[in-house]
Amino acid sequence: MTPVYLDYNATTPVHPTVREAMLPWLGDRWGNPSSAHAFGRDAAAAIAEARAEVAALVGASVDGVVFTGGGTEADNLALRGPTVARRRIVVSAVEHPAIELPSRALEQQGWARAELPVDGRGRVELERAREILAEPAGLLSVILAQNETGVIQPVAELAALAREAAPEVLVHTDAAQAVGKIPVDLGALGVDLLTIVSHKLYGPNGIGALVVREGIELRSLTLGGGQEHGRRPGTEPVALIVGLGAACKLARSDLHEEGARQDALRRRLWERLREAVPSIAWTGEGAPLLPNTLHVRVPGADGRAILAAAPEVAASTGSACHTDEERPSGVLGAMGLLGRDARGALRLTLGRRTSEADIDRAAESLVAAIRSLTA
Amino acid sequence: MTPVYLDYNATTPVHPTVREAMLPWLGDRWGNPSSAHAFGRDAAAAIAEARAEVAALVGASVDGVVFTGGGTEADNLALRGPTVARRRIVVSAVEHPAIELPSRALEQQGWARAELPVDGRGRVELERAREILAEPAGLLSVILAQNETGVIQPVAELAALAREAAPEVLVHTDAAQAVGKIPVDLGALGVDLLTIVSHKLYGPNGIGALVVREGIELRSLTLGGGQEHGRRPGTEPVALIVGLGAACKLARSDLHEEGARQDALRRRLWERLREAVPSIAWTGEGAPLLPNTLHVRVPGADGRAILAAAPEVAASTGSACHTDEERPSGVLGAMGLLGRDARGALRLTLGRRTSEADIDRAAESLVAAIRSLTA
Repeated sequence: MTPVYLDYNATTPVHPTVREAMLPWLGDRWGNPSSAHAFGRDAAAAIAEARAEVAALVGASVDGVVFTGGGTEADNLALRGPTVARRRIVVSAVEHPAIELPSRALEQQGWARAELPVDGRGRVELERAREILAEPAGLLSVILAQNETGVIQPVAELAALAREAAPEVLVHTDAAQAVGKIPVDLGALGVDLLTIVSHKLYGPNGIGALVVREGIELRSLTLGGGQEHGRRPGTEPVALIVGLGAACKLARSDLHEEGARQDALRRRLWERLREAVPSIAWTGEGAPLLPNTLHVRVPGADGRAILAAAPEVAASTGSACHTDEERPSGVLGAMGLLGRDARGALRLTLGRRTSEADIDRAAESLVAAIRSLTA
Repeated sequence: MTPVYLDYNATTPVHPTVREAMLPWLGDRWGNPSSAHAFGRDAAAAIAEARAEVAALVGASVDGVVFTGGGTEADNLALRGPTVARRRIVVSAVEHPAIELPSRALEQQGWARAELPVDGRGRVELERAREILAEPAGLLSVILAQNETGVIQPVAELAALAREAAPEVLVHTDAAQAVGKIPVDLGALGVDLLTIVSHKLYGPNGIGALVVREGIELRSLTLGGGQEHGRRPGTEPVALIVGLGAACKLARSDLHEEGARQDALRRRLWERLREAVPSIAWTGEGAPLLPNTLHVRVPGADGRAILAAAPEVAASTGSACHTDEERPSGVLGAMGLLGRDARGALRLTLGRRTSEADIDRAAESLVAAIRSLTA
């Protein structure tokens, strides 16, 4: 029997409507969007339509959507693409490596760098942030929804704080986990740059976008042809772009209903686990959370051992990008959760295919595994 | 009626066998290859299989295949990824912008840069190359098959010349147009790095590979997760990688037969055009050429005007990456073809779907267009 997939924050299956939109572009429609003939014009029109869908989902202008090869490239482009006069970068303590590492690279190049600490629930502390952002920054990058805990960060408030001290600061948010799960709006967040990742919202893998506010110029990370107004050279991957457009359209159509459905299932899972394992802790409880993410810690147990003993559940102990690493999650460390407090971590993330029956089956399997290990 | 597509060098349709291989990964198989559970292991195994297919097509080691977001990224990685002690780069005069521009960027950073001139047929002149490469280079990058003319460059000879003066020189070839059309072997070419582009060989767009000889280390262009042994961070696009693998397998299965078939059709097209327009010239005639590429020049005519008057043919006047530019092709300029000699250029490139009937229809339409314009 196929395990219950509870790892939607690692990647999502392509949704059937996305697949349908893509299929013609893997079949009898093709063409290089730069070509002047009918095949090329057809491809260029499909890209324009998809671009409008992406822009609509996050309240951006169509020209502000720059397609990239994925989230890592979009994050790197956000930090290295804009011209920033003041060489000081501020990031949160719970960024994805695609932000954390480029921000440290800037530090190695002589930038000043500061980290915004988080509280015990994993949320950036506004009072500490106020102090740190009182010193003017050139670039602020804060993850919108943390990929391990699902904690939604106060990006709008932080953007406002940063602008108080430095009106010209550029603010970026890595919205990889947020887009498609909660409402995300460039204007409401007050950000200048925003990362979207297709495979986190039921689009194909290998495509993402950096969305930029009007007036922001970007130097491309690579050099080549003039595609994406020179901001990202290379033949545009039409099928992928069409797929991302369809995924954004889908997200816009039922964001609230689907979020509420997953939230109810997530709470059902939590109740089952808590009933059976009273000492279990819900990471981030009380903070604003993604509706699909349940990060828990089982005292006295090892997350890997629990998952190994629960083969009917496909979940993770943290970010997929760190699976091979033995060291505990840096995100939990930033929350003050170390050693024994962090070792029992499980990231259980739900999605569109998750059913009530899945939840019950997963709960049963996890509870049995935990009991066998902590008995 | 759909125009006859003669622009396969701009992009190719996804082949049905490639599509079939990809479809499960747009359906009920998914998973982040970094995930430790069954979904992730399934994805990782599919990637391993595809990687072996890519390696087999070009005679590389499996660990030498680094998947990228496309050809532009692979080219940029080839020039910026390796550690090169001697800061002198040599490229041909007929590179794609994805090599030309990064090589000029190195020059701006203080590298010495030299260009290998081409003869009137568009092929690098070995005698001039011998002189230029007598001065030791750190990096040599020469396109294997030129994207506009289809001329195959003497890469093996140039690699040997470069090594005579500098045994530790790194040699790269942009094989975007060659792989899948002619036999390409890392060892036979004597190169250290080689670029593959999926959408030029009936694979999906948005994926490419830089193939590196064993022992060559690469710094990644972006920073993030540890994927591709740290050489290219970001969640691996499983469907695309599987598609590229299937495209490489397909190419290996019928390279010679399909090449011979396209070559015969290409000659048929040439004969038709020459019979009707005796003054027409075949660019690169006499040089080793890709079997699918027919680059011609019609004296006294404008290539764009010919294509506009031949709506039954979807072809180009040059590289798709330059469609919007009014200036004549730099590749033809490097061959000494300027102004009137270059303006009548047509790039007619055939592919797997091209039939004899297509060729006859295209020839008729082109001939009528040329006659109407040169009458």
